[in-house]
Amino acid sequence: MNISLKKARIIIRKALEAGAAAEMKPLSVVVVDAGGHVIAFERSDGASPGRFDVALGKAYGCVMLGMTGSAQRDRAEAQAYFVGAMNGLFGGRFVPVPGGVLVRGKDGAVIGAVGVTGDSSENDAVAALAGIDAAGFVGEA
Amino acid sequence: MNISLKKARIIIRKALEAGAAAEMKPLSVVVVDAGGHVIAFERSDGASPGRFDVALGKAYGCVMLGMTGSAQRDRAEAQAYFVGAMNGLFGGRFVPVPGGVLVRGKDGAVIGAVGVTGDSSENDAVAALAGIDAAGFVGEA
Amino acid sequence: MNISLKKARIIIRKALEAGAAAEMKPLSVVVVDAGGHVIAFERSDGASPGRFDVALGKAYGCVMLGMTGSAQRDRAEAQAYFVGAMNGLFGGRFVPVPGGVLVRGKDGAVIGAVGVTGDSSENDAVAALAGIDAAGFVGEA
Amino acid sequence: MNISLKKARIIIRKALEAGAAAEMKPLSVVVVDAGGHVIAFERSDGASPGRFDVALGKAYGCVMLGMTGSAQRDRAEAQAYFVGAMNGLFGGRFVPVPGGVLVRGKDGAVIGAVGVTGDSSENDAVAALAGIDAAGFVGEA
Repeated sequence: MNISLKKARIIIRKALEAGAAAEMKPLSVVVVDAGGHVIAFERSDGASPGRFDVALGKAYGCVMLGMTGSAQRDRAEAQAYFVGAMNGLFGGRFVPVPGGVLVRGKDGAVIGAVGVTGDSSENDAVAALAGIDAAGFVGEA
Repeated sequence: MNISLKKARIIIRKALEAGAAAEMKPLSVVVVDAGGHVIAFERSDGASPGRFDVALGKAYGCVMLGMTGSAQRDRAEAQAYFVGAMNGLFGGRFVPVPGGVLVRGKDGAVIGAVGVTGDSSENDAVAALAGIDAAGFVGEA
Repeated sequence: MNISLKKARIIIRKALEAGAAAEMKPLSVVVVDAGGHVIAFERSDGASPGRFDVALGKAYGCVMLGMTGSAQRDRAEAQAYFVGAMNGLFGGRFVPVPGGVLVRGKDGAVIGAVGVTGDSSENDAVAALAGIDAAGFVGEA
Repeated sequence: MNISLKKARIIIRKALEAGAAAEMKPLSVVVVDAGGHVIAFERSDGASPGRFDVALGKAYGCVMLGMTGSAQRDRAEAQAYFVGAMNGLFGGRFVPVPGGVLVRGKDGAVIGAVGVTGDSSENDAVAALAGIDAAGFVGEA
């Protein structure tokens, strides 16, 4: 089971809408497949130029380790050098905070991830989940 | 003058539609700003997973050198070691073939670039120009 | 559809056996998934230490571009700077010669790739295909 | 004295069996030689795609510094910036936690290392030792 481009568009649009409705700062949203490769991305007007990298770092780390952004944050709080090592391992493409959300298909297998950045990490995760839900998938933040 | 997310969406949709109408292989399209940073990207279903990197390499090189993909290809034919050096210089984010298209605003200044990949380099450029035209900008391929 | 570890083991064993039966030099064989990530690898005794990198470079490039090693070699012969750019783009993980073989599932979709190195590129591809056939998949070299 | 492919296969199979017998999460196991270069690797079905990188980071660091994963973890707890520097030094291929186990031959010399990842770092090390023991070598975790 894969995330189609059509589904990825829904995830992004609904995540951006959720952010706007909650008056979050301008969000950026990436959707990656089960191998961590980009399917689609959008950066809101007014967001800073590095937001693609931040969003991808959140989503890529989720997929590569099979861990949510929250779980990575917890590991980082307990063992900062471990997430530092992961950052080097994945060529810097690793941002261990909420806003990185695993996407699971109907059988529970990881089929990709979403990375949201722009507001607080917790709000980023809320927006990501809204998009994933709207697309009919199960998000794990 | 900037490319808004709304305009970037038009570029991508129209480029993908142009590719489909001409029965090209599944295309992937990126839009970057005047700093070479990603505004939006979409990968068609059926395209291979590395297409984001190829699309970005085309668009990034255009912006960073202010040269079109065609001009880079001509330089490569004449002086392959020069484009090899650019590839190293920009950390590998440099794909010197058509499909990388500069986007100019009304005053002629470069406001970003589009990178398209999936079919022949020449067809990729045709699709990119279709998207840029539909958004009301001037493309230079 | 994925390549299970059980299937990957069959691919590797049968590729190594095919090489030994044909009196090829000691082979090394990698199997990667649809995202280019390693499932399994074995290096024969007597093979040089860099063989993992060569095998992975062959398989990774196949998956990322959706092109066989032979097609990459043809592109390299026609346009060397293009494959040079791909090498930079994928962080050096790109070896554009035969021995990189796409693996397709029953519906024709790419589900991974096999990279073989150690003998001539053409023989490497023969061994890869033997392994893929034995596992019940379709190889495209 | 070297680790033959035959011995590497035993290490991997027995480590995976030890993990399954103890109901650990799906493990991934790499065996590297005395130069830190990959001999063999297997990723269990259900493990996340980045597990090759994590396993190799554990084993590579062991060989390159002649330090076990536990010793690296202790150094990290005392001096996080040191392991951060090692991570940069070895291009990110450095994961300073248990699960990286040195392999010694009969004369006590280091002949390679094993990296296991997937469960807790401590359990990873237990599985690695089980594999190394089964192959008739001495592991130092």
